[in-house]
Amino acid sequence: MNKKITIAIDAMGGENSPYKNIKGISLFYEKNKDKDDYYFNIYGDEKKIKTELNKYKISDKIFQIFHTSSVVSDNETPLTAVKSSKNSSMWSCVNSQKIFKSNISLSAGNTGVLLVISRMILKTINGVSKPALAGLWPNKSGMNIVLDLGANIECDEKNLVEFAEMGSALYKSLFENDKPKVALLNIGSEEIKGTDIIKKAHSELKEISKKGGFDFNGYIEGNKITDGNSNVIVTDGFTGNIALKTAEGTAKFITDNLKKYLTENILSKISIVFSYFSLKKFKDKLDPRKFNGAIFLGLNGPVVKSHGSTDAIGFYHSIDLCYKIVRGNLMSQIKDNLSHLNDSE
Amino acid sequence: MNKKITIAIDAMGGENSPYKNIKGISLFYEKNKDKDDYYFNIYGDEKKIKTELNKYKISDKIFQIFHTSSVVSDNETPLTAVKSSKNSSMWSCVNSQKIFKSNISLSAGNTGVLLVISRMILKTINGVSKPALAGLWPNKSGMNIVLDLGANIECDEKNLVEFAEMGSALYKSLFENDKPKVALLNIGSEEIKGTDIIKKAHSELKEISKKGGFDFNGYIEGNKITDGNSNVIVTDGFTGNIALKTAEGTAKFITDNLKKYLTENILSKISIVFSYFSLKKFKDKLDPRKFNGAIFLGLNGPVVKSHGSTDAIGFYHSIDLCYKIVRGNLMSQIKDNLSHLNDSE
Repeated sequence: MNKKITIAIDAMGGENSPYKNIKGISLFYEKNKDKDDYYFNIYGDEKKIKTELNKYKISDKIFQIFHTSSVVSDNETPLTAVKSSKNSSMWSCVNSQKIFKSNISLSAGNTGVLLVISRMILKTINGVSKPALAGLWPNKSGMNIVLDLGANIECDEKNLVEFAEMGSALYKSLFENDKPKVALLNIGSEEIKGTDIIKKAHSELKEISKKGGFDFNGYIEGNKITDGNSNVIVTDGFTGNIALKTAEGTAKFITDNLKKYLTENILSKISIVFSYFSLKKFKDKLDPRKFNGAIFLGLNGPVVKSHGSTDAIGFYHSIDLCYKIVRGNLMSQIKDNLSHLNDSE
Repeated sequence: MNKKITIAIDAMGGENSPYKNIKGISLFYEKNKDKDDYYFNIYGDEKKIKTELNKYKISDKIFQIFHTSSVVSDNETPLTAVKSSKNSSMWSCVNSQKIFKSNISLSAGNTGVLLVISRMILKTINGVSKPALAGLWPNKSGMNIVLDLGANIECDEKNLVEFAEMGSALYKSLFENDKPKVALLNIGSEEIKGTDIIKKAHSELKEISKKGGFDFNGYIEGNKITDGNSNVIVTDGFTGNIALKTAEGTAKFITDNLKKYLTENILSKISIVFSYFSLKKFKDKLDPRKFNGAIFLGLNGPVVKSHGSTDAIGFYHSIDLCYKIVRGNLMSQIKDNLSHLNDSE
């Protein structure tokens, strides 16, 4: 069993839990019936979880339920929650990596609390100064990774360089590309632009990229994130969070407008009949559920945070992300990449 | 003539100049034939400008051409350009506010050089520590203003508060709303989130808003910029620039995908016939040319920067923006608003 990819799941985090969490597991099970290389440790209210599990025909050889008595609420702050959370599904889910050798933990619960708990239980990897939250971002040719998305609102050049190494490791584990292209988010592409920290990070990344962990594309501006020419985009958590949310808001604004105009009169409604499959493909391509799941990097074990408001399909994609991360040996990729930094000291 | 709204135009800045600049003027002239309250001081190569002007029937009572012998190129850096730019159309266009009492200057040329030249010639308003670049941003119910968009990559709370007052003045001059709603861009809406500078700016804005220049909505996240609940969104130039460009990139990514899928097969192409007018309205609503023009605030005279790559319609919108800014008495609105800050010291 230990050789299986073991995913610890907080079944109680996020809206509509455990319904969506368990349905997400069932979707993963349906799509991976040909495999027997994975296992779920499920944490939460045993009775509720069983009620949900009974709706699907999931082999009981692929999971185990661990009853927990409390749930971290969305309103709790990290400060108050940590003390009271030790019996929670979230705590136990993360702790599962320590006591049951789960390879990864997944929760759709309170982000702030999850980050603090994860840090407390798993501890930061030696040589990493700040763990970071990384996300998937759709682009022309597939997906890239952006980090940090909000774990660290202030970062120095050392942090940014570490983000580059950890983000590259994540990209390699997910996409089997042996040399990701890294870029540094900035307000211009010329070397003279940006803050002192960014300029220092630029020159360090240029040097470190020579050790082979990634190619360095230099600076990237916000309007190029989706152009597919860079695989890993590095920034501080303040900027990353605002870029991500601005992109989400813009996408919603545009698609809301499109919907409004395409349903405004009978002619435009008829047009939907003809463009149904094309519009469906368009919607599929941009479906945010496909990019659901931010990865907390830099701890002695990976933790994935699903959007709290996503549905079962979104949660399924987060489970799939967990599976791929472990299959791609994220942790050893990170250790390999971090050795570039130790060498240089 | 002095009572007219006098707009100084750099006819040589940006791609396809002076063609688009002069055509922009002709579009403005066509749409404002019933008015006689405006005048253009046009700067650039007299011969080329005349060739373009001859294509349209524009009354020669509404403009004067001032020949200039050089053009600031897009590749020049502010450092090298300032020395060599004194005979340029850009320099003369900004200087026009000093020597010909133009009320505002408009250029589609090199942004960095324009900011430096404008600062040198017009000087910063007493009481303003840093001038800022403000832009229009489409939202559900119309437009809001975001600043700073990149003039100042590092800002303290004093700068952010000044941006709030200047942005509110701009909003009032453009939309005749006597109390704009101001929000501070942050990575969460709770008061504990953000950097120290942002928290300090939050508490100062709360206090200063009591003096009546604006209502303070507190923090806003990136995904709420387009929701129409705030009229002026304040941030430092680094974050603002990245948010703006990320939004532009996202919008392009989505509309490119939409185009791709709607033209992929014969059925979807037929659908366009039925949805033609609706899609046109959709496109119109999001047409970036309508938001063309960033306003440099905090100098003793307003300067508008048009996108270099926009066309004649985009340039027309920048001219219209200049006209509205002067008609709405931006400069006295700014002085009124800045008095709130002096009172508090």
